[in-house]
Amino acid sequence: MSRSVKKLTGLVAATFTPLTAEGEINLSVIGPYIDYLIEKQNIKSVFINGTTGEGSSLSVEERKQLAGAWCQYGRGKLEQVIVHVGCLSIKDCQELARHAASIGADGIAVTSPSYFKPINADALKLFIKEVSIFAPDLPMYYYHLPSMTGVAFDAADVLNGIEQVIPSFQGVKYTGTDLRDLGQCVSYSQSHNWSVLFGVDEQLLGALVLGAHGAVGSTYNYFGRVVNQMLAAFDDGNHMQARALQFESMEIITFAKNLGFDVAVNKQVMSEVSGLAMGPPRLPLLPCPVLKAQAIAQKIKDFSQGH
Amino acid sequence: MSRSVKKLTGLVAATFTPLTAEGEINLSVIGPYIDYLIEKQNIKSVFINGTTGEGSSLSVEERKQLAGAWCQYGRGKLEQVIVHVGCLSIKDCQELARHAASIGADGIAVTSPSYFKPINADALKLFIKEVSIFAPDLPMYYYHLPSMTGVAFDAADVLNGIEQVIPSFQGVKYTGTDLRDLGQCVSYSQSHNWSVLFGVDEQLLGALVLGAHGAVGSTYNYFGRVVNQMLAAFDDGNHMQARALQFESMEIITFAKNLGFDVAVNKQVMSEVSGLAMGPPRLPLLPCPVLKAQAIAQKIKDFSQGH
Amino acid sequence: MSRSVKKLTGLVAATFTPLTAEGEINLSVIGPYIDYLIEKQNIKSVFINGTTGEGSSLSVEERKQLAGAWCQYGRGKLEQVIVHVGCLSIKDCQELARHAASIGADGIAVTSPSYFKPINADALKLFIKEVSIFAPDLPMYYYHLPSMTGVAFDAADVLNGIEQVIPSFQGVKYTGTDLRDLGQCVSYSQSHNWSVLFGVDEQLLGALVLGAHGAVGSTYNYFGRVVNQMLAAFDDGNHMQARALQFESMEIITFAKNLGFDVAVNKQVMSEVSGLAMGPPRLPLLPCPVLKAQAIAQKIKDFSQGH
Amino acid sequence: MSRSVKKLTGLVAATFTPLTAEGEINLSVIGPYIDYLIEKQNIKSVFINGTTGEGSSLSVEERKQLAGAWCQYGRGKLEQVIVHVGCLSIKDCQELARHAASIGADGIAVTSPSYFKPINADALKLFIKEVSIFAPDLPMYYYHLPSMTGVAFDAADVLNGIEQVIPSFQGVKYTGTDLRDLGQCVSYSQSHNWSVLFGVDEQLLGALVLGAHGAVGSTYNYFGRVVNQMLAAFDDGNHMQARALQFESMEIITFAKNLGFDVAVNKQVMSEVSGLAMGPPRLPLLPCPVLKAQAIAQKIKDFSQGH
Repeated sequence: MSRSVKKLTGLVAATFTPLTAEGEINLSVIGPYIDYLIEKQNIKSVFINGTTGEGSSLSVEERKQLAGAWCQYGRGKLEQVIVHVGCLSIKDCQELARHAASIGADGIAVTSPSYFKPINADALKLFIKEVSIFAPDLPMYYYHLPSMTGVAFDAADVLNGIEQVIPSFQGVKYTGTDLRDLGQCVSYSQSHNWSVLFGVDEQLLGALVLGAHGAVGSTYNYFGRVVNQMLAAFDDGNHMQARALQFESMEIITFAKNLGFDVAVNKQVMSEVSGLAMGPPRLPLLPCPVLKAQAIAQKIKDFSQGH
Repeated sequence: MSRSVKKLTGLVAATFTPLTAEGEINLSVIGPYIDYLIEKQNIKSVFINGTTGEGSSLSVEERKQLAGAWCQYGRGKLEQVIVHVGCLSIKDCQELARHAASIGADGIAVTSPSYFKPINADALKLFIKEVSIFAPDLPMYYYHLPSMTGVAFDAADVLNGIEQVIPSFQGVKYTGTDLRDLGQCVSYSQSHNWSVLFGVDEQLLGALVLGAHGAVGSTYNYFGRVVNQMLAAFDDGNHMQARALQFESMEIITFAKNLGFDVAVNKQVMSEVSGLAMGPPRLPLLPCPVLKAQAIAQKIKDFSQGH
Repeated sequence: MSRSVKKLTGLVAATFTPLTAEGEINLSVIGPYIDYLIEKQNIKSVFINGTTGEGSSLSVEERKQLAGAWCQYGRGKLEQVIVHVGCLSIKDCQELARHAASIGADGIAVTSPSYFKPINADALKLFIKEVSIFAPDLPMYYYHLPSMTGVAFDAADVLNGIEQVIPSFQGVKYTGTDLRDLGQCVSYSQSHNWSVLFGVDEQLLGALVLGAHGAVGSTYNYFGRVVNQMLAAFDDGNHMQARALQFESMEIITFAKNLGFDVAVNKQVMSEVSGLAMGPPRLPLLPCPVLKAQAIAQKIKDFSQGH
Repeated sequence: MSRSVKKLTGLVAATFTPLTAEGEINLSVIGPYIDYLIEKQNIKSVFINGTTGEGSSLSVEERKQLAGAWCQYGRGKLEQVIVHVGCLSIKDCQELARHAASIGADGIAVTSPSYFKPINADALKLFIKEVSIFAPDLPMYYYHLPSMTGVAFDAADVLNGIEQVIPSFQGVKYTGTDLRDLGQCVSYSQSHNWSVLFGVDEQLLGALVLGAHGAVGSTYNYFGRVVNQMLAAFDDGNHMQARALQFESMEIITFAKNLGFDVAVNKQVMSEVSGLAMGPPRLPLLPCPVLKAQAIAQKIKDFSQGH
């Protein structure tokens, strides 16, 4: 594995996948999307084809096209393009990993398969390893997401010793609320210079104090700029200001949750806030009522304008 | 939809997918597998690429090859080959449905996607419909499997009115323990001449008394012959005998569960009982310790020889 | 333990606990309640202070008063009064068991504690044993209710060998949908002449075919008479008629579930159907909107009048 | 409600309940226990009869005796004795609240009932209110513990507006990992001067950064002194040191969890570390193997001696 790995830190947008009104992937939006993230949200890195990007609802071919477009349009603009290659079938994961390497992605990430579940952390390590060997030079991240995958054993148990099995391993996207486990991931990662990126946006401050190196999330698509202020406040030791900003984002998320906040709603919110045409979600998700998305989007706009 | 639909009844084997030692699909086993089912287990219909068949762990291309082989080798021997086409991505489902029609399958089945979940029964109906239109002449079955998919709304709510949306709809594979819901599926299916097939093998008798028309399960691969005796006893009104046979199969399943009974173990059990080389499971499943499989297989052999 | 144990069979009403408008227990309703069960529903045995009876919401003293009243008013009228003595505190269970023996109850039942949970079936057996020794001459029943207690290990594992630990053990109230486990309870109980009573009213037929000896449930309070017809049809080998009656009761329960069917609603339904003043539920349950209860009650009245 | 409420802050020990070898409450240990907490752990406040104290396994009379002893022996030594009065039966809660007021407790706390569950936050507020009126002058705390009660709606929804219903309301013991909800509790509590106390010991740092005012937990019984160092480091803005201490405590808890860490084990650990005779747990909990407790205790002793 190359020694020149750029450590992944700061805010990373888990991107939405633009679709046309007919439900086909819409690559024409990727370029403007990248400009929006950089110019309006101060976001320089992306995590594509993940949960927010409806990766599981796309075909392997579609995921390749999207990865290609993000790498192509992002070249010279984005710092890092991380391609999520997790699938139920390891064959598909391997093909996507191989492809990601061929297009110049900066890293790949894998969730645990969620239909058949690995019986323990070692089985999951083996799964990740068998994917990584199809892209041995790309940094590999484990994407821990127990609420969606139902695979709930400690991420720290997955990390423990994984450097001996997967030379390209570089860290974890931790989307869970168990700070004990998160803390142990941070603790273990220190000596390996890995990245621990937190994925529960509205709880980020709790992860920062435990040493998380950054965050990957969908809300950074539309209020990354303000959350960057929260990171700066925390780094300055200004807990009061950091907390105030986190409380505001919590309120927005709670408001959205009470309305029913899934990826379909989130996607429509992004369209409303950014002006970019994200299009509908794909089945089994249903399009979100516009009024609902607009109500949430208004909260976000107020939040952004206030800071 | 053709008026000449053969109603699916009786025992249907949810088949395993033979792999080589290297983990590639092994089509050479399909022919002997079919002969075994017919000759040794008195099983005439199969449900392929489902949970037992590790369908979710296969690529779309592999699933097509398997479906092709089952249809080809089963022609003139098997009564019905039902191809499971459920995937997380509706694009993949559609492609598999189209392919199943092209190779002469007798029906297709779809589970609910389990990563993103339909928000209600109507969303799931819409998902199934959008798959069915790629194989409009093939009988479509809904495969209800809440323990794996986490999609727990009543199957009866999915069935209710679905004939107006999906002309090719023909029934449900019900793999759950809610007999209230099952009973309502049976009740609703009566006027449509649909099939309600039960999928919890060790509880089949409870479904029969409620009017289930048959069963789809993995255990019929290796003790279908005896379970056919149970069906006959029940049809004769001989509850005592039917119950005694069911109790015996319950004991075997309980024994297996206490040892840890997943698809990987089940697959090895099949190899032990049938002598067919099913090969290893695919990751994330791990190969099963042989002694464990042999202990379970011995119980099954004793059961079969006793009847 | 006395050799003259009357085997508990047939339908047993899990009774509601009448409260005054002020929320205090209302013993004056017990006498008329008994007459109603016998005369209108053909129900001769009761299970008191259980889930339907809001036993967990009552003080130990209240539970004693209720048990006393049911035994007193039921004498010479009811066949069996089974007193549920399950509590979180074993001290309370023991005191209630001792009391039940002193007032001439016909049996006692215990659920697993649900806050702290027994770590395995042996721990639960030990808990039940330590209760039984305070009423060594009363038949003891284990009340298996995993959906409420979260204690999900097999009831069959609790029964296995329990006769060596608890001489007064007499059976299980099985309120779960795992017919494999139920079947094994029936199988094990045969040589001990224990009773296996099923507790999921709308799925009773599935338990009967597996050999359940009777049923305990709340709906027998208001349509026990019709369910007795179902039992008779099943005993006559008339599956069609039994099934038709079960389908009708399933529809009522589904209708109620869709409206939100908890003990509070159920209690109000009982008042509406029977004309007895059951009063409000106790906190944390909230009184049920009358219109909701009336809509369900109407379905029940139609069901009863139709048979 | 008295205006002179002492705000509850800092570390509060959730105490164990000493039992004799025969399983009866052992009040003779309370005095030495208080001295140990003050002298060895620098802990000045206690939360009694809660989960750690096996409150649910005790009779009402035993809980009164324990509350009496803690108040009596703690007078002039402890800063605050908070008595948990939560039970399944509101009658019992009310009696315990009345009693707590009569013995001079400093506050009471209530969990949600967990067998019957309140249907929404308003029903839970009503339940808490009906308890509080039996001790109107005692500060009332809501004890949020979704992992045990299964009552998972936001604590912030319980707090919202509760001051209008319960004048004596003073805060929440938050034992959950949803920092969004926790943050909103902190945010709402600011204008009421309520206390938000965190209850997941090994994740405390994440709650501190969000403004939690203190913590209630079982581990403060045996390493409260070191955690007080963590609080001081955090208050000094020394994240590195605070984090290092939290990581160490995480490791101990992870070690314990991997061995099976329930209240029974925890209680034996306390005996091993403190030298106080806590005695066995009460059924349904089983006594903990001594070697297991000793292994955990050794880690705790090493942790304490290192700081």
